[in-house]
Amino acid sequence: MDVYTCIRTKRDTRAYDSRHIAEDTLQRILQAGRMAGSAKNLQPCRFVVLQDDARKKELSTCGQFATHIVSAPAAVAIVVPQEGRELDAGRSAQNMMLAAWAEGVASCPVTMHDASCAHRVLGLPDTHRVSIVLAFGYPAPGERRRPSPRLPLDELVHQERW
Amino acid sequence: MDVYTCIRTKRDTRAYDSRHIAEDTLQRILQAGRMAGSAKNLQPCRFVVLQDDARKKELSTCGQFATHIVSAPAAVAIVVPQEGRELDAGRSAQNMMLAAWAEGVASCPVTMHDASCAHRVLGLPDTHRVSIVLAFGYPAPGERRRPSPRLPLDELVHQERW
Repeated sequence: MDVYTCIRTKRDTRAYDSRHIAEDTLQRILQAGRMAGSAKNLQPCRFVVLQDDARKKELSTCGQFATHIVSAPAAVAIVVPQEGRELDAGRSAQNMMLAAWAEGVASCPVTMHDASCAHRVLGLPDTHRVSIVLAFGYPAPGERRRPSPRLPLDELVHQERW
Repeated sequence: MDVYTCIRTKRDTRAYDSRHIAEDTLQRILQAGRMAGSAKNLQPCRFVVLQDDARKKELSTCGQFATHIVSAPAAVAIVVPQEGRELDAGRSAQNMMLAAWAEGVASCPVTMHDASCAHRVLGLPDTHRVSIVLAFGYPAPGERRRPSPRLPLDELVHQERW
């Protein structure tokens, strides 16, 4: 898949079928997260990979709309220093989700509304906190074609000045 | 270029040659920003495109390491609501920079350390603030092969628990 097609067709998808994600695919997803640039090349993001069903179920209790972590064959928690590096986390997240989608693996970011719950489940040190969790899995039948609408480009773009 | 290669080889690059970015390439870069997913599909990001030399020079005074905005043929300011949507801005930024790199256009995020300066130069409403500025341009000769090193993957990744 070419890059622009991958970017255009990637949608946040919450329903997955039961297929396992092969280890080499998961490695490329993580490498993509690793390769994202970061401010001053500080590389603030760390990744906690969850594939165990009991662990995913536990983590899913930390978010309000997080049940799809359970059906996803893999979840990756992006962890950042307490002071926050959300823009870098977003760059890393997008890299991982695009690398996944290039191989047919769908994904969806999951907010951990109860941060202390996620902190405990993930066993994080006090210096760090979870930024976002990404759920990964092959899309369930019928899930590929339900795009969220986007605003027209001319409502988003200003030339030279707002 | 395939997606994984694009992700692996994209580096933040601050030196550009004088080539103009064609309008259709710039449109694809902006479309890529538009297509990034966002929390609850709120689509919080807006884009201010700067191509005028005087405008870019003015904006470059708002950051400590922002002089490469001047030599970049185009800059895109990502603007978010005051309450902040940095993770969504990061997703959008990465989409734009990857779509650009797929066509040979390099890029680098630029922090606006003086936010009120950027706010004034960009003419933003009080409801919004700049998240990051992306400089875009074809890499200057010799610039392609100076990668910032990345930490080994096994230092970044934890299995099941930190």
